[in-house]
Amino acid sequence: MNTADLGLPVDVPSTALFTDQYEFTMLQAALRAGTADRRSVFEVFTRRLPEGRRYGVVAGTGRVLDAVENFRFDAGVLGFLRERAIVDEPTLEWLASYRFTGDVWGYPEGEVYFPGSPVLRVEGSFAECVLLETVILSILNHDAAIAAAASRMASAAGDRPLIEMGARRTHELSAVASSRAAYVGGFTSTSDLAAGFRYGIPTVGTSAHAFTLLHDSERDAFRAQVASLGSGTTLLVDTYDVAEAVRTAVEVAGPDLGAVRIDSGDLLLVAHRVRDQLDALGATGTRIVVTSDLDEYAIASLAAAPVDAYGVGTQLVTGSGHPTCSMVYKLVARAASADPAAPLLPVAKKSTGGKTSIGGRKWAARRPDAHGVAEAEVVGTGPVPPGLADRQLQIELIKSGAVVAREPLDDVRRRHITARAGLPMSAVQLSRGEPVIPTEYA
Amino acid sequence: MNTADLGLPVDVPSTALFTDQYEFTMLQAALRAGTADRRSVFEVFTRRLPEGRRYGVVAGTGRVLDAVENFRFDAGVLGFLRERAIVDEPTLEWLASYRFTGDVWGYPEGEVYFPGSPVLRVEGSFAECVLLETVILSILNHDAAIAAAASRMASAAGDRPLIEMGARRTHELSAVASSRAAYVGGFTSTSDLAAGFRYGIPTVGTSAHAFTLLHDSERDAFRAQVASLGSGTTLLVDTYDVAEAVRTAVEVAGPDLGAVRIDSGDLLLVAHRVRDQLDALGATGTRIVVTSDLDEYAIASLAAAPVDAYGVGTQLVTGSGHPTCSMVYKLVARAASADPAAPLLPVAKKSTGGKTSIGGRKWAARRPDAHGVAEAEVVGTGPVPPGLADRQLQIELIKSGAVVAREPLDDVRRRHITARAGLPMSAVQLSRGEPVIPTEYA
Repeated sequence: MNTADLGLPVDVPSTALFTDQYEFTMLQAALRAGTADRRSVFEVFTRRLPEGRRYGVVAGTGRVLDAVENFRFDAGVLGFLRERAIVDEPTLEWLASYRFTGDVWGYPEGEVYFPGSPVLRVEGSFAECVLLETVILSILNHDAAIAAAASRMASAAGDRPLIEMGARRTHELSAVASSRAAYVGGFTSTSDLAAGFRYGIPTVGTSAHAFTLLHDSERDAFRAQVASLGSGTTLLVDTYDVAEAVRTAVEVAGPDLGAVRIDSGDLLLVAHRVRDQLDALGATGTRIVVTSDLDEYAIASLAAAPVDAYGVGTQLVTGSGHPTCSMVYKLVARAASADPAAPLLPVAKKSTGGKTSIGGRKWAARRPDAHGVAEAEVVGTGPVPPGLADRQLQIELIKSGAVVAREPLDDVRRRHITARAGLPMSAVQLSRGEPVIPTEYA
Repeated sequence: MNTADLGLPVDVPSTALFTDQYEFTMLQAALRAGTADRRSVFEVFTRRLPEGRRYGVVAGTGRVLDAVENFRFDAGVLGFLRERAIVDEPTLEWLASYRFTGDVWGYPEGEVYFPGSPVLRVEGSFAECVLLETVILSILNHDAAIAAAASRMASAAGDRPLIEMGARRTHELSAVASSRAAYVGGFTSTSDLAAGFRYGIPTVGTSAHAFTLLHDSERDAFRAQVASLGSGTTLLVDTYDVAEAVRTAVEVAGPDLGAVRIDSGDLLLVAHRVRDQLDALGATGTRIVVTSDLDEYAIASLAAAPVDAYGVGTQLVTGSGHPTCSMVYKLVARAASADPAAPLLPVAKKSTGGKTSIGGRKWAARRPDAHGVAEAEVVGTGPVPPGLADRQLQIELIKSGAVVAREPLDDVRRRHITARAGLPMSAVQLSRGEPVIPTEYA
């Protein structure tokens, strides 16, 4: 099937217009000036983590690989650029045969990162690299923000499953990417069918208040649901009176009722009451799912409550207060001429108003202490010190234009757990603080 | 051309998986229980505005109409639902011929709204309406959040143009919808070419720091840009030293230089210095564009500065602190039986934990005071009082499944200006406060 027919960016033939206009005008000017072919190195990094956060989570890399591979110009796109006079004819000709032929290295998806970590490095001609700025940043800034929130929630939830259910609170396709990033960060399932379709993430869902209200009584609604979905289903018990609903639920479904869901009220109090009631009714195996404006703090506050799973919506898809990261895509080195043998010169913005960066192509390694726990993120531009050579973080993602590092999402998810476990214990504290390890420049 | 080939949700053949799984399981259970055909009324509303905000902005309605029209099930989608056993065969058969055949009324796009405003009403069988919950909320919650931020920024900017440039800070397709919502809220242009392509929004852009750093000197970079884009271009002057760059810019482009852009530093101070310098150099017509982490407060603080245009990124696409709205989609009335003549009964969740709502199909009107200024949002379920009959806010958007209210985006943009102008003056204060008019229930 042609999955592009679903309006999902699946086998998207082109991502070429997810681009800020200045990338095209720079291309045109550089082509005319003879500087477009200068070999260039762009790096993606953040100057800081969102306030109070201890670590960042690299997410979206797999989507970046798709986007770079599908960055090309068909007649429709070229026609638009011509009609709006965004670039001239020589530039349109150059774009018509565009394929990224350079190299991309980066932190593997699921890895953690810190201020200054060179999470992605794009190397090729200025022309081919400059066009990728916006689409790469869109993906990484969004997906990393969601994954970071998910990771904190997953730490707070411990072994209890986390259900992503925020689709209704964000753009319909942002929702699909959010489910993916949440899965990377430790969520177990999603309500979003498009995410199940696109990424194979397990999907869940049973009923809303509307289903109860549709029927002549709560009992009728529960009977209809159990008749359709079996007694293992999850019944929503807070439409009218929770205690009455729990009694009715067990009467209708029997003590094998799968779960009840509570979506309002004082969850800590209600969960205890419902657990006691379920146990008294013999439904000792019936689980309790809670879903009501949860964030990592609310999840943590329910750690001692008889809760079996959490559903998280708004706070997940909005990054729990930090809906974007501040990743930038900066030219850090470029050749002195278009000669392929010309040496690379480090470059950096130097104005006094902040936003300065460090020129030069960078390596990065995470230095462990004597116990194997990370103690510093080391970033440098010179030779890698011998002790850090086998601790380097960047891997090859695209080699001469060909993607070389696709991987299953479950591998990414496991990598994140491992990476987080290698940080000092204070990484998973929810309280505000500094990055859990410092970034050192070698 | 087939715009779906761009991965943009343009002529999207299907939006049917932008759906939470529970909508499908409710459908299956209702089909089996014989309640799926009960005539139902769902309403979209918020219980509150984001904290401190004076009004909300309806945005995304046009996208909702597209989404409802394209909500259908092809073989690929049905195959996915079958393979994952999300619904049973009778439900799959029902879905195969799905077309929304009901009615949708709502506030016209660009209108303002308040807590309790019934911004959208979807009426039809329970089955056909329940499936639309997630995709409708995704669109409205996202787009209204961005439009509300845009509207505040536009008030703060007064007559000065606002450029949307936040694509890199949000999901790549959320960015396209954000440009659209920003335009509705009062922005004048966007850097995002996909938004220009999809919605015809004017696009702008010239160059980034990378372009200056690519060249052997700032002078070389400016020459290259002016040679390519003409002296009317905008030169970025804060890569090295602003004063030197401004001097070089005017030397290279002449006093007819279109604009300079400042992207860092103390914008108030730098804008004054640059204006003085430009004037002294005879470039009295050269404009100053500022772009650096602006929000509505920063824009307002530059009101007396010699600034000619603002570029806004992060704070626009993240809703300036409120990246989503809290719109919900609630069943408010349904028939007592599947008989088409059965009367509608008001329904509402009643549990004690908050989240209660008011049952019944609602009308809404904005009552003016003696001077024609809005003084209350009046929402009711009974007959409309005579004095308010011609002040009703809802219009017909979809009639028996056919979209009847498509309109150009410029009309939406103008409507927002008019709607905001009809509110008390304090609506455009940036300080936190209560909704600028109360919602009264009649």
